Amino acid sequence: VDVIVWFTDPVVRRRAQAARPSSAGDVFRLIREGTATTRTDVARVTGLSRTAVTLRVNQLLAQGLVVEQAEGSSTGGRPPARLAFHTAGGIVLAASVGASRAQLAVCDLAGEILAETALDVDIADGPETVLAAVVKHLEHLVSESGHGDTVRGIGVCVPGNIDVETGRSVSFPVMPGWDDVAIPPYFTRRFDVPVHVDNDVNVMALAEHRARHQDGVNDLLLVKVSTGIGAGIVSGGHLQRGALGAAGEIGHIPVAAGGGAVCRCGNVDCLEALAAGWALVRRLSESGHTVDGVRGVVDLVRAGEPEALRLVRAAGRHLGEVIAGAVNLINPAVIVLGGDLARAYDPLVAGVREVVYQRSTALATRDLQIVPSALGERAGVVGCAVMVLEDVLSPRSVDAALARGT
Amino acid sequence: VDVIVWFTDPVVRRRAQAARPSSAGDVFRLIREGTATTRTDVARVTGLSRTAVTLRVNQLLAQGLVVEQAEGSSTGGRPPARLAFHTAGGIVLAASVGASRAQLAVCDLAGEILAETALDVDIADGPETVLAAVVKHLEHLVSESGHGDTVRGIGVCVPGNIDVETGRSVSFPVMPGWDDVAIPPYFTRRFDVPVHVDNDVNVMALAEHRARHQDGVNDLLLVKVSTGIGAGIVSGGHLQRGALGAAGEIGHIPVAAGGGAVCRCGNVDCLEALAAGWALVRRLSESGHTVDGVRGVVDLVRAGEPEALRLVRAAGRHLGEVIAGAVNLINPAVIVLGGDLARAYDPLVAGVREVVYQRSTALATRDLQIVPSALGERAGVVGCAVMVLEDVLSPRSVDAALARGT
Repeated sequence: VDVIVWFTDPVVRRRAQAARPSSAGDVFRLIREGTATTRTDVARVTGLSRTAVTLRVNQLLAQGLVVEQAEGSSTGGRPPARLAFHTAGGIVLAASVGASRAQLAVCDLAGEILAETALDVDIADGPETVLAAVVKHLEHLVSESGHGDTVRGIGVCVPGNIDVETGRSVSFPVMPGWDDVAIPPYFTRRFDVPVHVDNDVNVMALAEHRARHQDGVNDLLLVKVSTGIGAGIVSGGHLQRGALGAAGEIGHIPVAAGGGAVCRCGNVDCLEALAAGWALVRRLSESGHTVDGVRGVVDLVRAGEPEALRLVRAAGRHLGEVIAGAVNLINPAVIVLGGDLARAYDPLVAGVREVVYQRSTALATRDLQIVPSALGERAGVVGCAVMVLEDVLSPRSVDAALARGT
Repeated sequence: VDVIVWFTDPVVRRRAQAARPSSAGDVFRLIREGTATTRTDVARVTGLSRTAVTLRVNQLLAQGLVVEQAEGSSTGGRPPARLAFHTAGGIVLAASVGASRAQLAVCDLAGEILAETALDVDIADGPETVLAAVVKHLEHLVSESGHGDTVRGIGVCVPGNIDVETGRSVSFPVMPGWDDVAIPPYFTRRFDVPVHVDNDVNVMALAEHRARHQDGVNDLLLVKVSTGIGAGIVSGGHLQRGALGAAGEIGHIPVAAGGGAVCRCGNVDCLEALAAGWALVRRLSESGHTVDGVRGVVDLVRAGEPEALRLVRAAGRHLGEVIAGAVNLINPAVIVLGGDLARAYDPLVAGVREVVYQRSTALATRDLQIVPSALGERAGVVGCAVMVLEDVLSPRSVDAALARGT
C-alpha cells in the first residue's frame, strides 16, 4: 500500500500529538477554559484514573496555576472542591517599545494590567541604551507591584521585523543599530524567564483580536497609522506573520494618485509617502507650521487647521485605497485603525470609508466594520502580555515547567 | 477568582476537545500518518488498554480504512501485524466546473487520480443543465472505474463565492442564474455521501499547497489568470477564506497606470480590465485578430504575434503590481501562477517578476519563489479531492460514520 501522508501542517500535527494520555498541562487547559471545574469533571473528560487526576491536580496546585475552593452544596454531604484557574498565580511583564516612547506593564495571568508606566526613549540611541532603560524601569515596576518572585514570562514588541523563534531582529527599516540584534538576552540577564519578542503591529493585532473574538471575529486587520504605517493580520483566528515574519508591510504599497511623492525607503508613491505621520509632519513644516511629531499633526487637526485637516482626509483616502485592496485579498470582518495619527479619527476614517466602500467588492464589504482601537494606547502592552501568556500557559510549557521542577 | 478565557478560537477548541480518550477516528489518524504501525504502537501512543485498541482497530478494518499485513520477523515467534492506511478502501469524486469546461475525476483515499474525464459546458446554461451533465458524466466515470459501492465523498469547485458550510453559492459575479443556489443536492440525489463545494481558486490553492508542503511551504498565494483573475490563499498552513468566503478577489483591485480602462464590474482601472483573459480577447478582437477565448490569446503569443505578446507582458506588469501589494501584506513563500493565460508563462511571469522585485519589500522577496502550477490543468480536480478527503478522513467524520454503522 502506497501511503501518502499530506496532513503534516502544524495544527494537524499538534492535534495528532494530543492523542496521548492527558498531561498536567492538558488538565490545566481544561480548568483554565472552564471545561472542567471539579476532579470528577477532569476524570470524565480525559478518561484518566482518579489517581492520575489527583497527581496532576496536585502538581498544578503546587505550581500556583490552579486554586481549589470548597463550594456550598444543597444535597448535604461533603461538597466537591471547585478547581479554578489562579489568575493571581504569577505575573507577566510587557514592554512595548516605540520610536520615542516605551510603555511597560505588569499583568496577571489573565492579561489584566496590574501596574503600568511609560518612559521616553529615542530608538536611535540603539538597543543597548534603550533596552537597558526598559529593563531598569521594569525592575522598578515589578518591585513596586510586590510580585517579583512569580514572574512567568516577558513579552516585548519593537517597531521592526523579528524572527519570533529566536527574538532576533531581522530588519529594522530606517533604524540602524537595531539590525540583527538578539533582544531576549537584555531581559534574561535580569529575569530568568521566557522572553517573547515580536513586531508592534503583530502584538496590537493579537490584543485587538482578543478584545473582539467573543463576538466571533476570526479575521481582523489592524492598521497602525503613526510615524510609519504597518498592519497586523489575524486570519482564521490566528496571527499571520507570513513566511519570513514580513507580513503587514503595507506602508510601501504604491498608491494610484501618488503624484511621484518620494518615500523614505527611496521608492515613489508608497502609501507612507502620502499618509504616514512623517510625511504629514514634513508637509506641514514646509508650509510654515510648527509641528511636534504625529501628535502635533493631531493637535492641528483638532484646532481646525484647514491644511492639516485636508492632509489627514487625503491620507485617509490613500490609506483607503490600500485597505480596499487588502479587503479584497483577505476579506477581514473588522478593520481596526490604531496608532497616533488615528487619534484624528473622524477625518482619517472618512477617507478610508469613502474609498473602501467604493473599491472593495460588495460581498467583502457587506458586514465589514471599520473601527477605532478598542485598547487605544494600551494595545501594545496588552498584546505583549497576550503573546507571552499564549506560550507560558500552553499545556506544553506547563508540562515542561513541571518536568524542570519549577 | 475572575477567570477570563480568551482561548476560544476554533483550533484551540479542537485541541481541547482532543483531551479525551482516543476514539477510533484518533487511532485512524495515527495509522494514516504513520505515527502508529502496530497495535502495540497504538496502545503506547494513546494510553488505551489492549482491549480498547483491539475494538477500535477492528472497527477500522471493518470500515476498510485500515489494512493489516503480517510482517517478517528476524527474531522468530509470531511477527506483529502491521497496520496501514488502506488508500484503496474507497474513492472520492472530484468535479471542477469552469465557465466552459468541467473536469471530473475518481480518486483513491490518498487523493491519487484513478480515472478522469472532461466535458464542455456553458456555465450560462445555469446550474440545472450544467450540474445534471456533470453528475451524469460522474456516474459513467464511477461505473467504469468499478468502485461504485465505495464512494466516500464528493468535492466540487465552481467559479464563484460559496458558503462552504452549506455548499450554497453566495455571489456569482457576471453569472446570473447561479446566485444563491444550493449545489450539494444536485449530487446527493444520485450519491448519498458528503458533498463539499468551494471556489475554484481555493481548491487550487489547497492542491498546490499539498504539492509543496513537504518543502515546508506554509504560506502560498495561488493566482489564477484565466478569463477572470482570482487568488487562493494558504497562510500558516491553512486555506484562508476570509470572514465571508470572499478572500482572494484580486481581480478588482485598482492598478496605478490603468488609464481609465472600464471593467466588466462597472468600475475603472481594475486589474481584470487590463490583465484578464476577457480583456485581452476584447482588445485583440478590436484590432482585427480572430481570437478563440483565452487559449486563443495563448496561441497568438506562441505564434509570436507582436500585439498579443505586448499585451500579455503588460498584463504581467499590472498583475505584478497587485501581487507586489499582496506580497507586502501577507508575505507568502511561494506565488503560483495558474489558469489558462499562465500557459503563456514566460511573457506573463517576466512582467510579474519585474514589478514584484521592484515594489515589494526586500525581506518579503528575499526567498520568494514565483512558479508555474505544479499540477497544471489538474489543480482543480486534485484540490476538490483534497478538500473532501480532509473532511471524510478526519477523526470526527470517521467516528460519526462508525456511530451510524456505515
